[in-house]
Amino acid sequence: MADPVLDGLIDALRCLPGVGQKSAQRMAFHLLQHDRSGAIRLAHSLQQAVEQIGHCERCHTFSRQAICDVCLDPDRDPHLLCVVETPADQAALERTGSYRGRYFVLMGHLSPLDGVGAKDIGMSALLNRVADGQIEEVILATNFTAEGEATAHILSEQLKARGIKVTRLARGVPVGSELEYVDLGTIAHAFMDRR
Amino acid sequence: MADPVLDGLIDALRCLPGVGQKSAQRMAFHLLQHDRSGAIRLAHSLQQAVEQIGHCERCHTFSRQAICDVCLDPDRDPHLLCVVETPADQAALERTGSYRGRYFVLMGHLSPLDGVGAKDIGMSALLNRVADGQIEEVILATNFTAEGEATAHILSEQLKARGIKVTRLARGVPVGSELEYVDLGTIAHAFMDRR
Repeated sequence: MADPVLDGLIDALRCLPGVGQKSAQRMAFHLLQHDRSGAIRLAHSLQQAVEQIGHCERCHTFSRQAICDVCLDPDRDPHLLCVVETPADQAALERTGSYRGRYFVLMGHLSPLDGVGAKDIGMSALLNRVADGQIEEVILATNFTAEGEATAHILSEQLKARGIKVTRLARGVPVGSELEYVDLGTIAHAFMDRR
Repeated sequence: MADPVLDGLIDALRCLPGVGQKSAQRMAFHLLQHDRSGAIRLAHSLQQAVEQIGHCERCHTFSRQAICDVCLDPDRDPHLLCVVETPADQAALERTGSYRGRYFVLMGHLSPLDGVGAKDIGMSALLNRVADGQIEEVILATNFTAEGEATAHILSEQLKARGIKVTRLARGVPVGSELEYVDLGTIAHAFMDRR
C-alpha cells in the first residue's frame, strides 16, 4: 500500500482547501475505483485553468483576457465602482442582478497580522482606477467581518481624501428572518439605519 | 464571471466525493489565487495515477504491477488470507502492524439494492484464490455495518462449503473507551465473546 504514485496523488489532493489526509485518501480511491474519466477531466481542467486564467488588468478579477468581460461591457454603468474582496463575492453580487456598474476585486482583505498590506490588495491600482474621471461613486462591498470592515474603513478614508463619494452596502436584518433569532449587533445597526 | 474555463474547472472539481458547487468554487479560487503550482502538481498526479494504477490480479487491490508488492512479498504468511472491502481498510489493517498474511480486496460490499452482486466483488476470484492449496484460514475483515456483515455471512457460507477455515475479526469494546458510552449492541457482543 506504499505505492509512490498513489501516495503522490493523495498528497497532491491535500493542496485543496479543507482536504486532509483522510479525505484525500477517500478522494483518490473514489476516483480510481469509480470515476477515472472524471479524474482525467479534472487534470485537464486544472492544467487549462492555470495556463489560461490570469487577472484582469483593470479590476483584478480572474480573467482569460487582459481586460475582463465586465470591464469591457459597454452596457455597464461606468460611473459606479463596487469594491469586493474576492471573485466569489463578485459572483454572489452578480447573481442578484441588482447591480449594473463595474467592479474592483481586492483579491483579499487587509490583514496586518498575516502580512497582507495595502500593496497586496492593490490599493494604489484602485486609487488609479477611480481617478479615471468617470467614477462618481465607490460602493464598498467588503465582507462584514472584522477584517472586511477594517479594509472598508481604510479604503473609505483614502477615497474620500480624493473627493470620491463612498458608500457601503446597507447593514440590517436579513430578508426572511425572524427578529428573535437575529443577533444584537445586526438589530442595533438596523435601528440606526432605519428608513 | 461566466468564463467557460473557470466554470469548467469548478464543474470538474465536483467529481470529488463530498464536493458540491460552493466547495468546488472555493477550491478553484484558492488554487488560482494561492497555489498554482499545487494545481499543476495535482493535474500531473491525477494523470499519472489513472494511467499507471490498475488492480492486482491476485488480490484486486490498487497496484501498478500485475501482482502487487504484498502478494509478491515472500515474508508474508501464505497460509492466511484477510478479506477486506477497500484498499483504505487494507491500509488501516497494515498500519496496525499486527497482520503478516496476504489480502483479498473486494473493492466494495454486497448490496443487492444498488445492483452490487457476487460478481462485482470478485466472489469467484476469491474462491479460486483460496483453492491454491496454501490458504489455511480466511479472516473476514469486512466492515461491521449491515452490508459488511451480510457480505461476511455470504462469503463465510461459500468458503465453509469448500472446507476452508473461516474467522471474523472480534467484535467488542474499543480500546480506551468507557463502558457508559459504548453502544448496547457492542456490549452485548463483548459479553457473548468474553474470554
